[in-house]
Amino acid sequence: MSGEEEAAAQQQKTEEQKQDTKPEEDKQNEQQPPPAQEAEKPQNEVSYKSLVLSGYGGYDKVKLQVKKGELVPKTGEVLVRVKACGLNFADLMGRQGLYDRLPSPPVTPGMECSGIVEALGEGVTDRKIGDKVIVMNRAGLWQEVVTVLTSHTFLMPEGMTFEEAAAIPVNYITAYMMLFDFGNLRPNQSILIHMAAGGVGIAATQLCQTVKDVTIFGTSSASKHDAIKENGVTHTIDYRTMDYVDEIRKLSPKGVDIVLDPLGGSDTCKAFNLLKPMGKLIAYGAANLLTGQKKNLMALAKTWWNQFSINAMQLLQSNKAVCGYHLGYLDEEMELVGGVLSKILDLYKQGKIKPRVDSVWPFQQVGDAMRQMQERKNIGKVILVPEAEKEEKKEEN
Amino acid sequence: MSGEEEAAAQQQKTEEQKQDTKPEEDKQNEQQPPPAQEAEKPQNEVSYKSLVLSGYGGYDKVKLQVKKGELVPKTGEVLVRVKACGLNFADLMGRQGLYDRLPSPPVTPGMECSGIVEALGEGVTDRKIGDKVIVMNRAGLWQEVVTVLTSHTFLMPEGMTFEEAAAIPVNYITAYMMLFDFGNLRPNQSILIHMAAGGVGIAATQLCQTVKDVTIFGTSSASKHDAIKENGVTHTIDYRTMDYVDEIRKLSPKGVDIVLDPLGGSDTCKAFNLLKPMGKLIAYGAANLLTGQKKNLMALAKTWWNQFSINAMQLLQSNKAVCGYHLGYLDEEMELVGGVLSKILDLYKQGKIKPRVDSVWPFQQVGDAMRQMQERKNIGKVILVPEAEKEEKKEEN
Repeated sequence: MSGEEEAAAQQQKTEEQKQDTKPEEDKQNEQQPPPAQEAEKPQNEVSYKSLVLSGYGGYDKVKLQVKKGELVPKTGEVLVRVKACGLNFADLMGRQGLYDRLPSPPVTPGMECSGIVEALGEGVTDRKIGDKVIVMNRAGLWQEVVTVLTSHTFLMPEGMTFEEAAAIPVNYITAYMMLFDFGNLRPNQSILIHMAAGGVGIAATQLCQTVKDVTIFGTSSASKHDAIKENGVTHTIDYRTMDYVDEIRKLSPKGVDIVLDPLGGSDTCKAFNLLKPMGKLIAYGAANLLTGQKKNLMALAKTWWNQFSINAMQLLQSNKAVCGYHLGYLDEEMELVGGVLSKILDLYKQGKIKPRVDSVWPFQQVGDAMRQMQERKNIGKVILVPEAEKEEKKEEN
Repeated sequence: MSGEEEAAAQQQKTEEQKQDTKPEEDKQNEQQPPPAQEAEKPQNEVSYKSLVLSGYGGYDKVKLQVKKGELVPKTGEVLVRVKACGLNFADLMGRQGLYDRLPSPPVTPGMECSGIVEALGEGVTDRKIGDKVIVMNRAGLWQEVVTVLTSHTFLMPEGMTFEEAAAIPVNYITAYMMLFDFGNLRPNQSILIHMAAGGVGIAATQLCQTVKDVTIFGTSSASKHDAIKENGVTHTIDYRTMDYVDEIRKLSPKGVDIVLDPLGGSDTCKAFNLLKPMGKLIAYGAANLLTGQKKNLMALAKTWWNQFSINAMQLLQSNKAVCGYHLGYLDEEMELVGGVLSKILDLYKQGKIKPRVDSVWPFQQVGDAMRQMQERKNIGKVILVPEAEKEEKKEEN
């Protein structure tokens, strides 16, 4: 992401200006969008809502602010009015100081959003004002307007809502690259999808069905079993009351071909042991670290202590693959990632995938949105919108 | 391999009978094939040449013996008159006591051979006498006649020589599964193939060319560069005089998509670091352990000490895969392995692959054959044949 530094610099600039903004109370009440860029005032002078992580800790550490500043797209950039943003596990980890790809606070989080192009920087020919786009960035997208490199924007297909668009990038790219690059998923194989009702879980379940006769073991709490079954899970497992390893072995004594592991700690070791010969374990998260609002040192120590580790000799004799995936660390690979997103959007157009939006929250309720996800209440994607009222937003779409 | 135990038992039986065989000198001079099974003598009484590992150590530990015993194919088995056998790194490791899939000495090594079906066990309907077959087994195939389960035999395509047939299974299955299962090799990718003039190296280089525009970095000593280039290597690297990491970085600063690593030790760490994002390291051997005829404790310690090791967290942030492959540990997966071999034989029929035989050695020169491979003198496959003279063998084909 060559625009990363500029983005960070921009972030810095607007951060510095926030002392000038109104006191907290006023900001919370401010519901009107800032004046559009086309107004008579100096074009660069805009004010806009932004969610800012003020320091590491609990839900209250992310605050709604109104920033004022210069938001002019530079060469190769576009200005996008944001309509919906995705919430991800990395954001929850980032809030606790557990995600090193998020710049230090104060910082605006947000790795994905959707919106409308409102202004073009110099030299931009592949986007035009009014384009509906999906945007990806290392951070900074939980904001009413953003400037990003055009290479970080992707045209939304016809008929896609802004919420759907914001629900796609991180979850579907993660699932796609795990399944079809590392996983090399083929017909008649079997897979264990943990947290099958989560964003990545829903996406992975749908993508598995683009391959013939894949058997999907999916874990979630029992209350979500109907939903994940409807989404395509073959065998549902309640991880809270059952030993998922036992349940899988009962149905598939030799194990499975692929395990997607968002948990870490001892679950990664279990995953490795569950693999058939030529099986692939794909670690992509450490949700076991998230046991409460704030960083839990005991959970960290336990996860670390139980951490999966392997050497070349053990691996050689196992005929297995262990893979690590994290989209956040691919931020310099926009061409690769963009190519994957383009395939995903094709699948959407063909009706083969359909993002499931769990809930939509206005910026000022970001704490509740994070709680929804962290307490594993969601089925599908948790979405943030700049508008105060859902009704407003729906009309605009 | 459900026939494994029977095979081991059979091995044991014939081992026990070897006290009855003639003294060493006589055996060495015996050039005539044993009487055919159809002779008037009791059908079960046969005598046959066999290479036996008498204990762990140098080249002289593998001795030619003439065994006498009962060699009757059991239910589901066939008796095969062996025409050519493959020599593999695992056999060299086994001789030094470094390969735990080889039963304890005294034992006949040999994981692959080709030959002609000479008798059928009960219930065998998918093979007939006279069939030319490729045979795979955990061990025991360096022998003039062998009994194996039909599921371990594969019909040779028309026009394939016995030497070619014996050169295919281990090398091509290993290369195929690494490239197309773990490696998920796709057009425009790049790969580092160490020991590109070795059996697996030659096979992998050929298989890479079934995919469009793959860039192959191949290492070997300079004297073999013409041969590996002709075989399809894009960029040859003399590992004896050059730092292969530097050479690759010069041409491909971001590294490569796949490294096939037969070396182990510190080379595995270098391989991991050479990978691009989403790259795959596939470890499939520990040739660095083989520094001389006998087990070298210093080499073992050094390789162990420098051994690649990784934990889940490191992996997660790397966006890389580390895979271990060893065909010897897939011996219970005959269906999987047989499916792969069948695809390889199709590629042979289409003229897309062509095994390269480095040299053919009669059984009594097994020590020289092993030296040829261990001292890295070979280009392609080292083959053993039961016959004393190459000329005899060639006429028979």
